Amino acid sequence: MRGKLYGIGVGPGDPSLLTLQAKKRLEEVDYVFIPVKKIGEDSKAFGIVEQVITIPEEKVIPVIFAMKRDRKEQEKGWELATKQIAAYLEQGKSGALITLGDVSIYSTAFYVCDRLKKAGYDTEMVAGIPSFCAGASLAGISLAEGKESLMVIPSLKGIEQIKQVLPFFDNLVIMKASRFIAEIETLLQEQEETMTAYVMSQVGMEGEYIGPLDSKREYEYLTTVVIKKESNDTKEQ
Amino acid sequence: MRGKLYGIGVGPGDPSLLTLQAKKRLEEVDYVFIPVKKIGEDSKAFGIVEQVITIPEEKVIPVIFAMKRDRKEQEKGWELATKQIAAYLEQGKSGALITLGDVSIYSTAFYVCDRLKKAGYDTEMVAGIPSFCAGASLAGISLAEGKESLMVIPSLKGIEQIKQVLPFFDNLVIMKASRFIAEIETLLQEQEETMTAYVMSQVGMEGEYIGPLDSKREYEYLTTVVIKKESNDTKEQ
Repeated sequence: MRGKLYGIGVGPGDPSLLTLQAKKRLEEVDYVFIPVKKIGEDSKAFGIVEQVITIPEEKVIPVIFAMKRDRKEQEKGWELATKQIAAYLEQGKSGALITLGDVSIYSTAFYVCDRLKKAGYDTEMVAGIPSFCAGASLAGISLAEGKESLMVIPSLKGIEQIKQVLPFFDNLVIMKASRFIAEIETLLQEQEETMTAYVMSQVGMEGEYIGPLDSKREYEYLTTVVIKKESNDTKEQ
Repeated sequence: MRGKLYGIGVGPGDPSLLTLQAKKRLEEVDYVFIPVKKIGEDSKAFGIVEQVITIPEEKVIPVIFAMKRDRKEQEKGWELATKQIAAYLEQGKSGALITLGDVSIYSTAFYVCDRLKKAGYDTEMVAGIPSFCAGASLAGISLAEGKESLMVIPSLKGIEQIKQVLPFFDNLVIMKASRFIAEIETLLQEQEETMTAYVMSQVGMEGEYIGPLDSKREYEYLTTVVIKKESNDTKEQ
């Protein structure tokens, strides 16, 4: 009998944001698959898990998820990772593929779960805390109240993406925004409506910064910006 | 010395989606404040907590959060709840105010935390799994991949809200959508572009339904619809 694969979101960084379900599954499975860009590289997701659960070395299997610009090359990479994991499942072993944040929001683990499911394997996704929820809690802000809408851009590719949607929502979460901090600052200064921006960088990790938008700082890859329209506060419920 | 208040998201229903941090705080605090519409009413959030943690009856304090249409009346209600909790904190007692899902997304607990923080009390928000993340995992779908954007309407007030934003995103999450299922079905049939809709109702609770949009079914209050544009699959990364 084939084994089952769990795709598990481990939250953004603070190990205490792991769910009880994630912890239980990680303790039960035969193998924990950790996504790495290359062999020997540290995995952020596994760094979180390690702080809460002791997993014997022989149960930890690195799986290469190289980031490719070309979609076809990317697909090939996912296909390889899927096959690597499937080989363990074929031996009747169960596994957990871990991912930062939540497994349904912009996670590479999803692609593998989806491919295995479509190939007839038994798979299950375990939700994790998205970085923007953890960041909002640490900043002490809400992401949506009353009638407000919330838009999430999971991976910002350019400032135009923000300009296009700015009129249509009350709160905007922009993930992977580190390269565009100065442009976002300028864009907000140009608006007639007052908007407040918060930066949540390296949430729950070394070098964490939760605070106002400040283009004079350096930001790491895992940086999220939240833009809130000021008028929200006075809106009718 | 004044006590501290934790605003804690307990996830959407499955008690195993509680985070380790939420469990720890709920075990440590002097009082657990449970939001109810009226005294004697069962609390869904507490129903989740009870399955994982045994909390002595004398530590459980119901707090009334009546839903009012009028914003001023609503504010008065939140003010009263805030004062009730503050009275315990003034005695040096710590407390946890629990809420379904995540505390930063459309939660009444946020209002109380925010008011207490602004009044100088020590408060901390503990993120929880949003219902749409748990629902997406159960449905085995992603909420955003590659370049895709994600829009969340936390509380649908009318079909016009969807029509307005439909052209501007790749994936749309609509919470509290139960009254509008038939209208959403019609709207999607009218679109030229193929869109797939999933319903996630009572996630992790009695009467759970995760499946296709079906206007012939009855839906409870806690019903989320996810709309995904079909073209997403073939998009360049």
